Amino acid sequence: MIFNRRNFIQTSALATLGGIILPHNSYSKMKNGVQPVKGLKLSFEPYNLQLKHVFTLAGSSRSTTPVMLVKIEFEGITGYGEASMPPYLGESHESATKFLSALNLQQFTDPFRLEEILEYVDITAPGNAAAKASVDIALHDLTGKIMQQPWHKIWGLSAEEAPVTSFTIGIDTDEVVREKVREASEFKILKVKLGRDTDKQMINAIRSVSEVPLCVDVNQGWKDKQMALDMIHWLKENGVKYVEQPMPKEQINDTAWLTQNSPLPIIADEALQRLTDVQKTVGVYSGINIKLMKCTGMREAHKMITLARANQMKVMLGCMTETSCAVSAAAQLSPLVDWADLDGNLLISNDRFDGVKVVEGKITLNELPGIGIQPV
Amino acid sequence: MIFNRRNFIQTSALATLGGIILPHNSYSKMKNGVQPVKGLKLSFEPYNLQLKHVFTLAGSSRSTTPVMLVKIEFEGITGYGEASMPPYLGESHESATKFLSALNLQQFTDPFRLEEILEYVDITAPGNAAAKASVDIALHDLTGKIMQQPWHKIWGLSAEEAPVTSFTIGIDTDEVVREKVREASEFKILKVKLGRDTDKQMINAIRSVSEVPLCVDVNQGWKDKQMALDMIHWLKENGVKYVEQPMPKEQINDTAWLTQNSPLPIIADEALQRLTDVQKTVGVYSGINIKLMKCTGMREAHKMITLARANQMKVMLGCMTETSCAVSAAAQLSPLVDWADLDGNLLISNDRFDGVKVVEGKITLNELPGIGIQPV
Repeated sequence: MIFNRRNFIQTSALATLGGIILPHNSYSKMKNGVQPVKGLKLSFEPYNLQLKHVFTLAGSSRSTTPVMLVKIEFEGITGYGEASMPPYLGESHESATKFLSALNLQQFTDPFRLEEILEYVDITAPGNAAAKASVDIALHDLTGKIMQQPWHKIWGLSAEEAPVTSFTIGIDTDEVVREKVREASEFKILKVKLGRDTDKQMINAIRSVSEVPLCVDVNQGWKDKQMALDMIHWLKENGVKYVEQPMPKEQINDTAWLTQNSPLPIIADEALQRLTDVQKTVGVYSGINIKLMKCTGMREAHKMITLARANQMKVMLGCMTETSCAVSAAAQLSPLVDWADLDGNLLISNDRFDGVKVVEGKITLNELPGIGIQPV
Repeated sequence: MIFNRRNFIQTSALATLGGIILPHNSYSKMKNGVQPVKGLKLSFEPYNLQLKHVFTLAGSSRSTTPVMLVKIEFEGITGYGEASMPPYLGESHESATKFLSALNLQQFTDPFRLEEILEYVDITAPGNAAAKASVDIALHDLTGKIMQQPWHKIWGLSAEEAPVTSFTIGIDTDEVVREKVREASEFKILKVKLGRDTDKQMINAIRSVSEVPLCVDVNQGWKDKQMALDMIHWLKENGVKYVEQPMPKEQINDTAWLTQNSPLPIIADEALQRLTDVQKTVGVYSGINIKLMKCTGMREAHKMITLARANQMKVMLGCMTETSCAVSAAAQLSPLVDWADLDGNLLISNDRFDGVKVVEGKITLNELPGIGIQPV
C-alpha cells in the first residue's frame, strides 16, 4: 500500500508544498458555496535546519538537517508537528511529502480519536517513522489546545519532575572541545560521542577544563566486549553516568554480558525503535532511549515508557536535530524519564518556534496548552 | 504508616460521615475571614447498595454491598468517585473511613498532578485498593470536567469500539435460571458462575431457553487440570467463549498447562490485582480481568492494559456491584478491551448516578465530561 492516484489527488488538495498550493478536485463539493471541509486539515512545509556547528558522528558530518513542518487545523485551532529526518535514517523531504500527501485526514471529524487516526496513519505505509511522528505531534498539540492544557498535565505529570538535559559535545580537536565545554557551562551533564581511537583523548580534553558529569553515546562503535567493559570502568572513574549503545545491536549476547558486568547503566538506542521492540531489550540492556522520530510520536512513546517501567528498566528521552516544536513535544514526557537528551533545538540557528526552555540545565516546561509552543 | 491524630483531625474537617459534619481545627486559619481552602476538598459518604436479586457465588450469598461515595471539589467543580467493598475482599465502611480520613488532599492545589497525588494516596497505607480507587475515579472525573472532555476521548479512544457487556446469571434452580435468562434477552453474552457439582446442569438450563454466547467464571473452583480441560471442551461445544480463573491461583503450573491445551482463552482474575502482577500472568493465562476496585483505579488500569497488550494478552474489564459512578469510570476504558463485564449497576435498585448505558447489549458511552455521570 498505497500511494494510488485517487488518494493522492484527494489529499493533495490540502497540502502546501514549499508554498505552492496544489490543484484540487473539491470544486464539485463546493458548488453550493458551502465549505465542505469538516474534517482535519493537514498541511506541511519542507524546511532545512541550519546547525550552529558542523556535527560529527562516528562516521559522518553535516551542517543542515531536513525537517518537515506540519499543521493540522480543526475548527479554527492549529496543531503544530514536525518530522526531523537526518539522512542516515532514510527519510527525506521527498519521502515525507509522498507519505503525508497520501494521507486523507479529512475523513476524520473528531481529532480526539488518536488511537483510530494514528492506526490509520501507521498502516498507510511501512517505515516513515518521522513523518508519522509529525502527525502524532500535531494531533497532540491540537487536542491539548482544545482541552486548554499541556500534555504533561493531561498525562498527570508534575513539571518540576522534569530532569536535566544533556548537551552534546561533538568530536573535534582538543582545543575546540575545551572551548565548547566552557560555552556549555549551563548544563549539568554533557554528552560525548565515542567509538573512535580518540575516545580517551576526548574525555581527557573535557576533564582538563570541567568536572561536569558526562554520559557517552558509542553508536555501536565497540566490537569487543572485554575492551568495552575495560573502557566503561575507565569512564566511570572519569565521571561518566551511563553508556548508550556501546556495541553493535546484533551482538545481543555480548551486550547482555556487558550489561550484567558493567558498573554503569547500558542504554539501548539503535537496538530499538518502537513499542514492539521494547520487550527484546529486557535482560540485554539496563534501559532504553526513546526518540519521537523513531517511535512515531508521543502516543507510542508514552506506552513505551509504561512498558519499560513495568520491566524495571531505565528510560532516556532523546531527539534529533529539531526545532522547539518536536523538542517541546518530547519534553511533555520528560517528567517520566531518568535522563533527557533534548538539546536538538539548541544546536540550530533558525528555530521556527518558541517552546520548552533549558534553565540551569533543567528541562523547564511552560503552561501553554498542547505541546507548549508558539510560532516565532 | 500512618493514621496519626493530627492528620485525622486536619482531614476529617473535610469529611462528611453519613451526613454528620465532624468538628475541625481550621478555625484559626479562618480568623481573618479568608477562606484558606485552596487545595482539593475530599468528602465521602457510606452507602449500601440494594441488590435486585440475592447474589450467589461459589461459597456465599448476600443482598447488599457496602460502598463509599466520594467527592473531590476544586474551584467549584465536583468530581465523583466510589469504592465498592464486597465483604470477601476485606474492605468495609470502617476501613475506607479510616483510610480516607487519613488523607490530606488539601495539600494539593493542582488536581492534574495525578501521578504525584495517587502516589501519595497509594503509600498512605497498604491494601485499601477500593478506597484508593474512589480517589482516583473522583480525580479523573474532576480533571475531565475541567478539560470538558470524557476520559475515553482524552485517552484517544472511539466510543463505538466499546464491546458488548456480559450479564451475570446467578446460581439458582433451573426454573429461576430459565426465567433470568429470558429477562436478560437484551444481552449478547451471558456470564455464568461455575465451580459446583451442578455446573453442567446450570449450562443445560440456560441452553434449554437460549442460544446466546456464554462466558464462565469458575472462581478457582476446579482443582484437577484434566477434569478442567474436559469441562472446557464440553463448554466450548455449548457456546462458551472464554473461561475466568478455572483453578486456584496457586496452581500456576497446572493453569499454564491448561491454557496451553485449552480451546478457549483462560483469563486471570483472582490471580492478579495490580500493575506489578501482570508480568507473572504472562505464559500462565491467555488474558487478564482488570477491575478498578482491585487495581486502585483508572490510572493503573490504563497502564495494565498497555502492559497486557505488549505481551499479546487478552484484556477483560470487570466490576463489583457498583453504582453507575464506578461502572461509568471503568467504561471509559472499555474501547481498549476484548470483553467487558460491566453489569454491576444493573444489579442494584438504588443507583445514585445516571451514566453509561447498555444498549442492545453494548456498552454505550455518552459525551459528558469526566467519567460521564450525573447524580440523580
